[in-house]
Amino acid sequence: MLYIVLVELKIPENIGFIARLAKNFGINNLCLFNCRISDESYSTAAHASDLLENAILISDLRSFLSKMNLIIGTTGISGSEYKYLRKPLYTPEDLPELIENAGDVAVLFGREDFGLLNEELRLCHAIVKIPTSESYPVMNVSHAAAIILYFLARSKLSSKPNEFATVQEIETFLNNVHELLIYVKYPKHRIKRTMIVLRRVIGRSRPKKYEILTINGIFRKAVSYIKRIRK
Amino acid sequence: MLYIVLVELKIPENIGFIARLAKNFGINNLCLFNCRISDESYSTAAHASDLLENAILISDLRSFLSKMNLIIGTTGISGSEYKYLRKPLYTPEDLPELIENAGDVAVLFGREDFGLLNEELRLCHAIVKIPTSESYPVMNVSHAAAIILYFLARSKLSSKPNEFATVQEIETFLNNVHELLIYVKYPKHRIKRTMIVLRRVIGRSRPKKYEILTINGIFRKAVSYIKRIRK
Repeated sequence: MLYIVLVELKIPENIGFIARLAKNFGINNLCLFNCRISDESYSTAAHASDLLENAILISDLRSFLSKMNLIIGTTGISGSEYKYLRKPLYTPEDLPELIENAGDVAVLFGREDFGLLNEELRLCHAIVKIPTSESYPVMNVSHAAAIILYFLARSKLSSKPNEFATVQEIETFLNNVHELLIYVKYPKHRIKRTMIVLRRVIGRSRPKKYEILTINGIFRKAVSYIKRIRK
Repeated sequence: MLYIVLVELKIPENIGFIARLAKNFGINNLCLFNCRISDESYSTAAHASDLLENAILISDLRSFLSKMNLIIGTTGISGSEYKYLRKPLYTPEDLPELIENAGDVAVLFGREDFGLLNEELRLCHAIVKIPTSESYPVMNVSHAAAIILYFLARSKLSSKPNEFATVQEIETFLNNVHELLIYVKYPKHRIKRTMIVLRRVIGRSRPKKYEILTINGIFRKAVSYIKRIRK
């Protein structure tokens, strides 16, 4: 299932526009994190008011995302300072392949002014950017959503998401890797970056539950071995 | 060159949104036929106010289009009653190939409520429709434009449009074909449809000037021959 997640949108019209787009493209799950729906939202939603009424209201974004199988972030910035947070960058054309049979997929759209925060981008397995003109690269979020949703609607999603590892299961695995890095005195300043790269590679591979359990075993074994010989 | 032609849009915000999209995708020519620009247009155009200021104001749509090499219409309706007017239907994915090296290309977006009129669709060489959900197929025109412009921006346009036949040259040829149909007593009720099919096939083939002149010669010869033997 596809979940369109709007993160702290400030302009009520944009929420309605995106609800309408979701319905135009047969996507039923609109999720709102700190977004205020107003009459203007209903006006721009037109005949998609049901999506606004049935929107999933998210109080804890991280916990909501932990139940997903794949998290995709969107950005309008190619990234300079926090380069690795926005790498690798996918184009909308990559979406059908990225989400094919991926189970439960959340696609995040961020604030009109600042987009997604670094801590939100860090949770994502893939970052998508729409290629735009250098002279005016900043799109209205609802028009960016039109293009992203168009490509999302052209993908085949699995109807059996259960065999795939959830984000929570992937995160448990990543915590074990992180623990190992600490144990082996991996350079501290490189840990953050390494973890993001690993999260993206693993997340995008759409691992099955048993696959994550299997490779998780490697790291648990390594950590327990180190603990033992250190004593 | 690409020309985005807005036909009688009634909501000023949509004109601004589409101006912004044009600039986002590096398309400079915004053309307005019976569209009213207001403060709201400037507000939604954001940093693309220059496109509004420099918009080409069209007083005679047919005469404006006659200078183009290729005319592409957009529709939200697959067509039942006037089926042939909306056939064949292209998807946005077809656009890059359709417009590659096509010279001057006009892409028409119609009224928020009625879209393009049949007489406008008749002028088009290709009709594009965005595949949408059956439960709510009607998109906001600016969001449809987002998707169309995204694909337009991914095409290579020729910088030398002069070798291509203009719409006017194609229409002159079509008039000769029409004349022949009348001379040979082609069934009247099929003429309209036949002419549309021919216009689309010829238009989409992106004919060179000399090609149109060449095949035009066939019909002129046929007409003059019939005229002569009838005397």
